[in-house]
Amino acid sequence: METHQFLLILLIILLAARVFAELANRLHLPPVIGELVAGVVLGPSLLGWIEPVEPIKLMAEIGIILLLFKVGLGTDVKRLAKTGLQSVVVALVGFGAPFLLGFSVGYWVFGIPLLVSLFIGGTLTATSIGITVRVLADFGHLNTSEGQTILGAAVLDDILGVVLLALLYEFSIGGGTNLNNVAKVILFVGTFFVLAPVAAKLMSSIIKHFDEKSSVPGLIPTMIVSLVLFFAWLADTMGAPMLLGGFAAGLALSRRFFLPFGAGLHVATPAFAENIDTKMTPIVHLFTPIFFVTVGLSLNLQEVDWGSSFIWFFSLSLLVVAIGGKLLAGLVIRQPWPSRWIIGTAMIPRGEVGIVFAELGRESGIFSHEIYAGMIMVIALTTLLPPFVMQVLYYSFPLLEKEET
Amino acid sequence: METHQFLLILLIILLAARVFAELANRLHLPPVIGELVAGVVLGPSLLGWIEPVEPIKLMAEIGIILLLFKVGLGTDVKRLAKTGLQSVVVALVGFGAPFLLGFSVGYWVFGIPLLVSLFIGGTLTATSIGITVRVLADFGHLNTSEGQTILGAAVLDDILGVVLLALLYEFSIGGGTNLNNVAKVILFVGTFFVLAPVAAKLMSSIIKHFDEKSSVPGLIPTMIVSLVLFFAWLADTMGAPMLLGGFAAGLALSRRFFLPFGAGLHVATPAFAENIDTKMTPIVHLFTPIFFVTVGLSLNLQEVDWGSSFIWFFSLSLLVVAIGGKLLAGLVIRQPWPSRWIIGTAMIPRGEVGIVFAELGRESGIFSHEIYAGMIMVIALTTLLPPFVMQVLYYSFPLLEKEET
Repeated sequence: METHQFLLILLIILLAARVFAELANRLHLPPVIGELVAGVVLGPSLLGWIEPVEPIKLMAEIGIILLLFKVGLGTDVKRLAKTGLQSVVVALVGFGAPFLLGFSVGYWVFGIPLLVSLFIGGTLTATSIGITVRVLADFGHLNTSEGQTILGAAVLDDILGVVLLALLYEFSIGGGTNLNNVAKVILFVGTFFVLAPVAAKLMSSIIKHFDEKSSVPGLIPTMIVSLVLFFAWLADTMGAPMLLGGFAAGLALSRRFFLPFGAGLHVATPAFAENIDTKMTPIVHLFTPIFFVTVGLSLNLQEVDWGSSFIWFFSLSLLVVAIGGKLLAGLVIRQPWPSRWIIGTAMIPRGEVGIVFAELGRESGIFSHEIYAGMIMVIALTTLLPPFVMQVLYYSFPLLEKEET
Repeated sequence: METHQFLLILLIILLAARVFAELANRLHLPPVIGELVAGVVLGPSLLGWIEPVEPIKLMAEIGIILLLFKVGLGTDVKRLAKTGLQSVVVALVGFGAPFLLGFSVGYWVFGIPLLVSLFIGGTLTATSIGITVRVLADFGHLNTSEGQTILGAAVLDDILGVVLLALLYEFSIGGGTNLNNVAKVILFVGTFFVLAPVAAKLMSSIIKHFDEKSSVPGLIPTMIVSLVLFFAWLADTMGAPMLLGGFAAGLALSRRFFLPFGAGLHVATPAFAENIDTKMTPIVHLFTPIFFVTVGLSLNLQEVDWGSSFIWFFSLSLLVVAIGGKLLAGLVIRQPWPSRWIIGTAMIPRGEVGIVFAELGRESGIFSHEIYAGMIMVIALTTLLPPFVMQVLYYSFPLLEKEET
């Protein structure tokens, strides 16, 4: 393809992503919704101006790997230990309930095949750490006890979701669901999750060493991106999705990640971690919108039969499951009732992680256009509604603990 | 192409670029030499592991556009006014002499066709601001009177070189050299150079406005890259090379660029300019090595007939011209003799700008493999030798003014 044409497409994608993200923000919606809509508007669903050509798709792929790297970088393994049991309960119920309910609705109510139903359940498990954190911070409740519980649960949900994603991905590659595959994936993903952070930590200590010695500028961006690409490639080689590699690399480099058996490897000094964050953030910000716009571009709403009652009934049922499952997670723990509702509501947004799941389902041919469109609608609504509901809850229960300012 | 395979190629390119750049630095050579060698080693010249596939080439293209953006951003139009006449003389002689001598040697001595000879002369005009600044700073002579003269001349040389590049590029597109073409290119490039900074300045004021208002993170990286891509696309549309667009956008956003007729548009406040610099630098650092490695990958030294006396005689003649032309530029001005030698020597490195010229010649089919290989050798030697010579000069003339520390 012509360089000229490629630059124009990239330019339009970046520009449209920003304009729609700003519009979404004006309407008090998460910016990610705006980026998806930008893709829908530019793509075959509406204007048909742009199609996701190969170089754009590859840059989008880098975008999602880098985003998961940043999520990993922001993941605080220690926080989970602090908020403890409550986070674990919220995470497990908030993971298990939507998965089982989503699967059941798909398999038993709609008679959808096993693998597809499993993917539907899987798509409903995720909690978008990014959106949850953003909403809590906007309301000034991030550092409260329920804020901590939510964060811990969201972190754990992310890990569970990614492992489940890997598992289902392997099923879809293998074309079926047998115990050998399950064992193999658990072994691979387990090995990867145990070894990758150790390896990434070792490599980051090498990078840190050279960063202190080198007088050639640009070491951090090129070497950290190389590290992330390496683990993405490694994850893929081991049968896990690439973004798992990005997440593992981020986890290992996060300021608060400590190896259980490697006290000598505490290389992530605050200065080095901050340096990585400062230099990687603009790169992540550049590539990430390309992914979300590409997701929108891949969605052809014109191919969906909007007249069929199936898609409406299907989406509505799953929306109830998606909301109910997460609310249940908040209600089963021991906290004051307002806190339980807040926690449950805060866990509802699926955001980018849900979209990644749905996108994988679509790309591997597991999701038909109808089911994919239904899932996207459910994800969009779960992402859009909670901020409004939380606003109402915080106004209704003014006695809820507030952050000290 | 497979995402898996693409990530691996990108990873190897970034990693090799860094390793060879660090090695070059250890040997007191400019890192850009290391990156070129990395490409030569990985490419068909030596190992043949990697070929520059399309998505990599497109990312390389973004890399060189962004690098020229950064050169523009660092260009200080005011400094030229300060160092004044001496810089102008050094720039004009250092531009004119290598061009005329290079052209003459090609056309009259070697009987090379007109357009090719013009391109040979053009390739010899550039001065690598990056390398020159780096070398002066390393020796602690950047803020001396001869340092200022060199910088001013390098800046002007860059603009002259880019205009000449645009001119010759247009010739090569048109397939000939007629007065209409010359007039058209001067008109287009002139219009572009007058209007682009004004337009970029206006756009950057819009970006600044939104940056202050927006709470959606990532505005600077996406919008500045969009701005640069837009001007690259615009330059290409007007018949100028894309990197000219990147340079113009950088020039307009540079801290010290003031519009002659637009006092109200002085939007580049120090804080905003610094913000742009902080966020764009990692992105530039990530993409730039991809370009230089890709240049190395495109170079097939196995296709060069090393046994032919032509290539040796040709390179040697041009090397003499390339060095002599720039030394002459230093010698014609009124300064103490040691300063004249220092100035002349500091202007010699061709670096990335020379490579861009040679690469354009190769891509458009103007340079044969022999001539291209010869030019690359000349560029490499002019880039490698001056740091050593300057070290010797500074030791031999210890009375030369030093920077206050």
